[in-house]
Amino acid sequence: MRIASVIGTVVATMKQEKLSGRKLLLVREVNTAGKASGEPFVAIDTVDAGKGDIVVVTEGSSARQTTFTDGLPIDAVIVAVIDSLEVEGKVTYRKQ
Amino acid sequence: MRIASVIGTVVATMKQEKLSGRKLLLVREVNTAGKASGEPFVAIDTVDAGKGDIVVVTEGSSARQTTFTDGLPIDAVIVAVIDSLEVEGKVTYRKQ
Amino acid sequence: MRIASVIGTVVATMKQEKLSGRKLLLVREVNTAGKASGEPFVAIDTVDAGKGDIVVVTEGSSARQTTFTDGLPIDAVIVAVIDSLEVEGKVTYRKQ
Amino acid sequence: MRIASVIGTVVATMKQEKLSGRKLLLVREVNTAGKASGEPFVAIDTVDAGKGDIVVVTEGSSARQTTFTDGLPIDAVIVAVIDSLEVEGKVTYRKQ
Amino acid sequence: MRIASVIGTVVATMKQEKLSGRKLLLVREVNTAGKASGEPFVAIDTVDAGKGDIVVVTEGSSARQTTFTDGLPIDAVIVAVIDSLEVEGKVTYRKQ
Repeated sequence: MRIASVIGTVVATMKQEKLSGRKLLLVREVNTAGKASGEPFVAIDTVDAGKGDIVVVTEGSSARQTTFTDGLPIDAVIVAVIDSLEVEGKVTYRKQ
Repeated sequence: MRIASVIGTVVATMKQEKLSGRKLLLVREVNTAGKASGEPFVAIDTVDAGKGDIVVVTEGSSARQTTFTDGLPIDAVIVAVIDSLEVEGKVTYRKQ
Repeated sequence: MRIASVIGTVVATMKQEKLSGRKLLLVREVNTAGKASGEPFVAIDTVDAGKGDIVVVTEGSSARQTTFTDGLPIDAVIVAVIDSLEVEGKVTYRKQ
Repeated sequence: MRIASVIGTVVATMKQEKLSGRKLLLVREVNTAGKASGEPFVAIDTVDAGKGDIVVVTEGSSARQTTFTDGLPIDAVIVAVIDSLEVEGKVTYRKQ
Repeated sequence: MRIASVIGTVVATMKQEKLSGRKLLLVREVNTAGKASGEPFVAIDTVDAGKGDIVVVTEGSSARQTTFTDGLPIDAVIVAVIDSLEVEGKVTYRKQ
């Protein structure tokens, strides 16, 4: 799974009916310090993630393996909000 | 899911019979300002997207999770036309 | 799906028995003008594509969604031979 | 499968209920000498891997093909702890 | 499918029980001349490939579509040993 920060939202009126009522969040991959890198992409939230949160994103067919996303045409889902990251014994990120 | 702009169309007479009557659109990944980046690729439209639209593209097996694409040999589908993108409190793209 | 040109063939005597009699084509991603970019990869043909053709390649589990490739251990299939590509109102590639 | 080293841990209180009790490890791709390269990502452990271990990571839907991960919304799983790597007749990495 | 050369082996005592008795080969993507490029990765052999062989590697869920790999937590499998590659009418690689 990729580590990403929630940077914004996507508003879309015309969308697949299966996606109606689903919140589309903009996320961007981050490093272990929580700094953004790479291009933004879109993920569905399942854990009440908010802007600025560092989250775990599951991609591919596994993104459909939650009761909330079963059968949806989506390929990325937020499965956890990260409290802290520890790398080689040091805390590199802690949620504030 | 990736954010992409619809840049053109693909015309193909010889194709998998399951694809007959399906519109093949050329899309290209964009950043949060709607500016193109990366190589173009092909996606099937399910939401009446038009040229110039910024859209949400679902890839992989999840691209087959719509009534329109079920069982098709395709790996990218347009699932939403984006009205606006908001990043860190600012609108970075708005459909015109 | 990726746009690619057919650049050659792969000859292999020792192969998975499910692949016997299947033609393995070498393809390479191209831009909208039909110029090659990126590394070559191998795809199974289902639409009688020939060398020099610009084609649409479907990848992942969706590559198995044709009657010809159902259940095969392959992850890339040619699903269309492109006649022309149109980008922002201009024809950027036309098959000769 | 990718070769990666286990570099740390992810702590997350808010997560998909299917993930409760699952240990989320931070891993990073390595070369054949065991040196890190690329961005860190998150994987579920199934073989009691520890920090500093070089491991084999399976991704995509295949990550769900263990009794421990069946049906989980995860896309990366550690399936082996590497004792040694041999490249062209030479041992390039040995676990200490 | 990617073209890769077999460069070595992975020894791992602690591994998913479904992988016991399976040979884990180190492979690395090659160009059409058979020269290595990119990072090494791990694949399961199904066609008796040996070190130095140039092979075809199938990835993702399709890697499980052989009788030998059905249901295994693996995402890359060797499905063919390449005898020769022909690009634009010229043989660019021939097995020795």
